[in-house]
Amino acid sequence: MIYPRVALIGLGLIASSMAHAMRAGGLTGEIVGYARSAETRAVARELFCDRVCDTAAEAVRDADLVVLAVPVGAMGEIAAEIGPHLKPGATVTDVGSVKQAVVDAVAPHMPAAVHFIPGHPLAGTEYSGPRSGFATLFQNRWWLLTPSAGTDPEALARLRSLLEAMGANVEDMDVAHHDLVLAVVSHVPHAIAYTMVGVADHMRRVSQQEVIKYSASGFRDFTRIAASDPVMWRDVFLTNKEAVLDILGRFAEELFVLQRAIRMGDGEHLHAYFTRTRAIRRGIIEAGQDTAAPDFGRSAPPAKEG
Amino acid sequence: MIYPRVALIGLGLIASSMAHAMRAGGLTGEIVGYARSAETRAVARELFCDRVCDTAAEAVRDADLVVLAVPVGAMGEIAAEIGPHLKPGATVTDVGSVKQAVVDAVAPHMPAAVHFIPGHPLAGTEYSGPRSGFATLFQNRWWLLTPSAGTDPEALARLRSLLEAMGANVEDMDVAHHDLVLAVVSHVPHAIAYTMVGVADHMRRVSQQEVIKYSASGFRDFTRIAASDPVMWRDVFLTNKEAVLDILGRFAEELFVLQRAIRMGDGEHLHAYFTRTRAIRRGIIEAGQDTAAPDFGRSAPPAKEG
Repeated sequence: MIYPRVALIGLGLIASSMAHAMRAGGLTGEIVGYARSAETRAVARELFCDRVCDTAAEAVRDADLVVLAVPVGAMGEIAAEIGPHLKPGATVTDVGSVKQAVVDAVAPHMPAAVHFIPGHPLAGTEYSGPRSGFATLFQNRWWLLTPSAGTDPEALARLRSLLEAMGANVEDMDVAHHDLVLAVVSHVPHAIAYTMVGVADHMRRVSQQEVIKYSASGFRDFTRIAASDPVMWRDVFLTNKEAVLDILGRFAEELFVLQRAIRMGDGEHLHAYFTRTRAIRRGIIEAGQDTAAPDFGRSAPPAKEG
Repeated sequence: MIYPRVALIGLGLIASSMAHAMRAGGLTGEIVGYARSAETRAVARELFCDRVCDTAAEAVRDADLVVLAVPVGAMGEIAAEIGPHLKPGATVTDVGSVKQAVVDAVAPHMPAAVHFIPGHPLAGTEYSGPRSGFATLFQNRWWLLTPSAGTDPEALARLRSLLEAMGANVEDMDVAHHDLVLAVVSHVPHAIAYTMVGVADHMRRVSQQEVIKYSASGFRDFTRIAASDPVMWRDVFLTNKEAVLDILGRFAEELFVLQRAIRMGDGEHLHAYFTRTRAIRRGIIEAGQDTAAPDFGRSAPPAKEG
């Protein structure tokens, strides 16, 4: 048992998966939960919480670990509410996709005797809510932590051991660098996928039925990305604005160069460009993040996702 | 046996998969092949062709079905070469991802006694070449045919029965409409994926190693798309220029609206936009083109791809 009592604030995909994983591994004695919606609380009570409270302040009382698993935009308000009720020596972490904004919103409300260690599991599915969790979600996925210079090494080691016991590969990263890396590998790809799905939705001459019917040809991966939780993604773009706009600007430039090559019929440019991208793909397969199976791994064991 | 003799011109992923599938189903008596590269011809001779010829003209002699499986940009030259050597009554089809350009390039070289029926299997992997084929590639995938008003119904029915015997779902479609639909569901998503991979490649502050390491978060699907055959995709963009530029223009507009909402911090706009895209995703799952499994179907049986 790593933490005798864990409080989950917010009871969606990540929190419910943590509950299932902690229970499966015998990693905690008691799981206490809180969510804003009464319906969510009822589901959590039935499926994965030992106890569910009507307020966040009540839920964190005497908890050894508090996990903030609400949308990034809601972190500050929750932190202000629970701050005075945290047990001295407790660890507080979060699972937000953006880290600087969470640090700015949460840290001011943390008492000196509490260890605040921001975190971000690179795991997820296109489903959300308290019924969507499952114990193996974090198996072999990255879980990034962004401790500061003053973070207590023992508290960090203990949190790390919990995450590793749930199957995650834990890495420390600088807060600002986290937000830039995630803008490149996750936030901007999501913005682009949402946009392409939006374009298809607006076409008059191509019916939505046709788009859906023939979606296997590349488009399907975009819809998969674009089906994620709208509130979570709204908050990601509002709170990681600077890095996202930087990368989006570069993307637009790059796209215009490609568009111009298509318009000019510059086959040499296109061929050279498309050849370069294969190297990155090869690197991903070699890094073991994906499979080389000809069906793109869809028949292979679950690979990393998020 | 549907065609006593089939000639495959071009021996890459699609042609080699057809050979494996036709052999597995006993759908033809003899498979004759031709490819420009001597190395490819040697592999085909060893793996899936009964006979391999040194010229396309020789390969099509007495063939009942000729499949043009070369990049779209090479179709015209091949058609000119084989035209005079085609058997009267033979059917010629192709597997190009663009149809108007193929019709323009090939039709003028077809003798009156030959049935030319353009086609496009929506199937593929990120691999290419004569070693990449497998018999089940077309199982439960779409194979679009674009016959004209004058196409012989018997020849069309015979070709359709071959494709269905290889496991494909065959649909007829108008040539121009095909090119627009494919621009939306395949060509532009590929252009975008290539571009995003290019952006990541150029970043200085985010190492390529980091991009690869954390690619699971959305970016991986882009690299998967962007790893396809460079020659094939160069030709797609050169030959479906009009539809691709139309859709790319709409995409850029749409992206700028999203970018502006992010810059302005317009959370309401973002939330409403991200909510709409979920409906298309639900439609795709309901249409049976994908799975609702929480691991995105990566552990489920192969789904449609292309």
